[in-house]
Amino acid sequence: MLFNVEVKISLKNGMLNPEATTIERSLDLLGYDVNNAKTIDIITFEMDGDDESEVNENVVDMCERLLCNPVIHNYEISVTALD
Amino acid sequence: MLFNVEVKISLKNGMLNPEATTIERSLDLLGYDVNNAKTIDIITFEMDGDDESEVNENVVDMCERLLCNPVIHNYEISVTALD
Repeated sequence: MLFNVEVKISLKNGMLNPEATTIERSLDLLGYDVNNAKTIDIITFEMDGDDESEVNENVVDMCERLLCNPVIHNYEISVTALD
Repeated sequence: MLFNVEVKISLKNGMLNPEATTIERSLDLLGYDVNNAKTIDIITFEMDGDDESEVNENVVDMCERLLCNPVIHNYEISVTALD
């Protein structure tokens, strides 16, 4: 069975985010005053599996080993079955 | 009035995505067979404005001038009022 997987990766609270700081500063130079900028990365892919919980377990493993740095990142996984 | 802005930036169809290709290949090395990997970037921030349409107009300008490359990126903007 084919599943669609979405992994949402964000920095943990309190971690410095130089990308967001640069965006704020650059928008300020263009005349826009924005605050509290954050960046989030989403990775989506399709994979085969027996059921949702098996796929979810595999994706947690992928996150811990490759996709995220568990020390600085939070991640949210959503798995949906494709027809 | 304060608004919460979310900009979702993805590559246009047909654009090569080396990041996604690397993710697929690396997951393959870990023993996971995934397909059709895509990456999406989300930028969120807060900004002041009179109403939703004014904020939206400003964010379109930010996207065209700084946040996106309109030649290769699609972007979706969502603006919600904060209490």
